Amino acid sequence: MFDWFHWLNLAGVAVCAISGTLMAYQKRMDGFGVVVLASATAIGGGTLRDVMLDVPVFWIADTDYLYTTLIAAFIPIIWLRISPRFPFHYLLIADAFGLALFNVVGIEKALANDTGMAVAVAMGTITGVFGGLLRDVICREVPLVLNGELYAMTCIAGGIVYGIGLQFDLATQWCGIAALVTTVLFRLGAMRWHWQLPVFYNDHH
Amino acid sequence: MFDWFHWLNLAGVAVCAISGTLMAYQKRMDGFGVVVLASATAIGGGTLRDVMLDVPVFWIADTDYLYTTLIAAFIPIIWLRISPRFPFHYLLIADAFGLALFNVVGIEKALANDTGMAVAVAMGTITGVFGGLLRDVICREVPLVLNGELYAMTCIAGGIVYGIGLQFDLATQWCGIAALVTTVLFRLGAMRWHWQLPVFYNDHH
Amino acid sequence: MFDWFHWLNLAGVAVCAISGTLMAYQKRMDGFGVVVLASATAIGGGTLRDVMLDVPVFWIADTDYLYTTLIAAFIPIIWLRISPRFPFHYLLIADAFGLALFNVVGIEKALANDTGMAVAVAMGTITGVFGGLLRDVICREVPLVLNGELYAMTCIAGGIVYGIGLQFDLATQWCGIAALVTTVLFRLGAMRWHWQLPVFYNDHH
Repeated sequence: MFDWFHWLNLAGVAVCAISGTLMAYQKRMDGFGVVVLASATAIGGGTLRDVMLDVPVFWIADTDYLYTTLIAAFIPIIWLRISPRFPFHYLLIADAFGLALFNVVGIEKALANDTGMAVAVAMGTITGVFGGLLRDVICREVPLVLNGELYAMTCIAGGIVYGIGLQFDLATQWCGIAALVTTVLFRLGAMRWHWQLPVFYNDHH
Repeated sequence: MFDWFHWLNLAGVAVCAISGTLMAYQKRMDGFGVVVLASATAIGGGTLRDVMLDVPVFWIADTDYLYTTLIAAFIPIIWLRISPRFPFHYLLIADAFGLALFNVVGIEKALANDTGMAVAVAMGTITGVFGGLLRDVICREVPLVLNGELYAMTCIAGGIVYGIGLQFDLATQWCGIAALVTTVLFRLGAMRWHWQLPVFYNDHH
Repeated sequence: MFDWFHWLNLAGVAVCAISGTLMAYQKRMDGFGVVVLASATAIGGGTLRDVMLDVPVFWIADTDYLYTTLIAAFIPIIWLRISPRFPFHYLLIADAFGLALFNVVGIEKALANDTGMAVAVAMGTITGVFGGLLRDVICREVPLVLNGELYAMTCIAGGIVYGIGLQFDLATQWCGIAALVTTVLFRLGAMRWHWQLPVFYNDHH
């Protein structure tokens, strides 16, 4: 189980690094801007989670994550020099998997440190969305997570499914897989049919 | 003493969560934007303080704070659906109490971890103002704490009063109450008479 | 060796505090805005480093840094009241030394905590540039570190020199001095001749 997780976690880091690079590209940043944005997006959420849980920060304990981030950050640069088209559509699907995986990793790391279930759901969501929030704040964009389609809500849904699984004494592997599938399907559905939470601003005021 | 603090701390968290929700309302954010902004405002300052002091983060150690934040975040939503008027004026007065309480909690938590008095004053101020700073940065507003009336300065004033109290061998309860009263009165005065620090930009340049 | 480091570190903190104050001046902030921006710039990078390494935060462990920040923050205020001219040019040269020193301090603190060399280079760079990034995000400026001349890249270059030195079994003092000189010269060269990394945006798209 653990190795499987390690590799999927690396895949999540790589996908987020690529999304940071693409933002840097749109903002016409230089090579270092790429490294900063890719790193912030890929390892920001996990770093905040580990610091708050007071466990060793994952990319300090295991250098693989840092190298993966750097290599992934330069894939779009090389790609865009060769071909004018980047498969943004596939990236969004990969991003949904990355989000779901970060969510499950966050939940499991929190529970392994004896937090309550509500805190674990919060940690999963933070792991999933904080990197992208950081990317948008650095670039002075309105954070996507605050204003767009269902994104963080899909993490919370996955976390609730995980908690329900635990209540029914499911093995944590199955809880994890159920949460992963819930988050991915919910996110893909939100992308496909543009699901949104109601904006509660009331125009009568 | 401790229980009294716990409940007032919960009240401070609730007030800050409500102020985050109202900002999300003005920015026409959706339901999750409300949760993010309310949480950042309510628990951001204390989280930064606990991480820097390397003590367990308060809302991870005690789930009450997380539930209080979530419940408080939805009070203005329900209120504004029922009534077009929200008592903003009372909220500002409550916010002054929240600021003062966060200040005292931050000072005491720092001193309990053997920091110097100057660090304790800084920790009280950070606990009081960082949540609002985070809220404003996420929303791309000019942070109120940087540009408006006396706000953080009232925390520093309260911290100095606390330190003077300790010098005169007052019991920490009385130091805390003196700091609380100083911060609240100073803040209410700043709101009532629009006290401001001098802006030091010199128009001759 | 250690005392020498302590004093140069204090000098780096002072220079960064002054640069924060000057930004607050240009933004016409009040006295507290000065304190917030000066502190964020001076101690932001080291704080993030220490929190991620899970070692005591340097300005909490040693109050000298906090007092240095406060005193340095008010130097430009007093200076600009007396004389209309501030020696910005010398400040940039001092800033290059501050950047280089923060870089070396970050690398050595990481290595002392048994991180790999890649993580140590990242920690040096974070120590050097994160304070300025924070300053720019709070002020809603496009972060200089992302869009301007070679800045963070000079830290990475210094870090690589440090790592090469270690490979050749040089004493850490000499590695540190080599990294310091590399970073300073590289930065001064970038300022003098406006070296830039290529922006990889391709206008054909």
